[in-house]
Amino acid sequence: MTIEAVVGASFEHSFRFTQEQVVQFAILTGDDNPLHLDAGYAATTPFKRPIIHGMLGATVFTKVLGTEYPGHGSIYLNQTLDFLRPMFVETDYIAVFTIKALHAEKHIAEITTEIKDATTKKVVTRGVATMINKEKF
Amino acid sequence: MTIEAVVGASFEHSFRFTQEQVVQFAILTGDDNPLHLDAGYAATTPFKRPIIHGMLGATVFTKVLGTEYPGHGSIYLNQTLDFLRPMFVETDYIAVFTIKALHAEKHIAEITTEIKDATTKKVVTRGVATMINKEKF
Repeated sequence: MTIEAVVGASFEHSFRFTQEQVVQFAILTGDDNPLHLDAGYAATTPFKRPIIHGMLGATVFTKVLGTEYPGHGSIYLNQTLDFLRPMFVETDYIAVFTIKALHAEKHIAEITTEIKDATTKKVVTRGVATMINKEKF
Repeated sequence: MTIEAVVGASFEHSFRFTQEQVVQFAILTGDDNPLHLDAGYAATTPFKRPIIHGMLGATVFTKVLGTEYPGHGSIYLNQTLDFLRPMFVETDYIAVFTIKALHAEKHIAEITTEIKDATTKKVVTRGVATMINKEKF
């Protein structure tokens, strides 16, 4: 896609996760924390039901940044992640990407990355990504 | 395991990734950036060969923090990630976790998280995790 490489430009991506994806992430990474997998254990926590691995939720950032906005050719330099609220399976979320700063001479953009609950609009994960993309920035 | 919950305490975990895991991560997350999957494309980049998704490398942090150090019961509050050097498959890495600060009244620890190449000892990914664990901290 064509990126409007100006500060303030933004891009949105809707997504949701299934419990099957949570299980696959646990197997792939070895992170079998029962908070994500065991409804009985999760019922004893303040969350009451299993929550998605924060790092699985954050993979929406690498997916969108690496394939859509700015897309192929991107190299990840930095990502900050604040896990503000739990994320759940079978729940609609929106990832919002906003160009915060551009360093055109270095082909680098700082992009605010947020995940919002599509229904409540509350931000569940917030961070900033720094990307190089020689074609787009 | 028993954690020595003092500033400066550290824990190491050795690991490596396979190309099969990179493919599984690409399928699971939808991040099919050819930099990670296509040797022909990667040959045209400064890296010369496919590199691991930075976020896949960083999953070693959620795995160890969620299952070993401090382990089950952990809740992730924050993670910063600086992708300093590329990571490759079939390469030995060491993840090093060091307690940087403790806030015992809140059961919170700030933990420096680093991935080093096991051979060259160069740091490839660096960050800080902030975790709650009511039993360990």
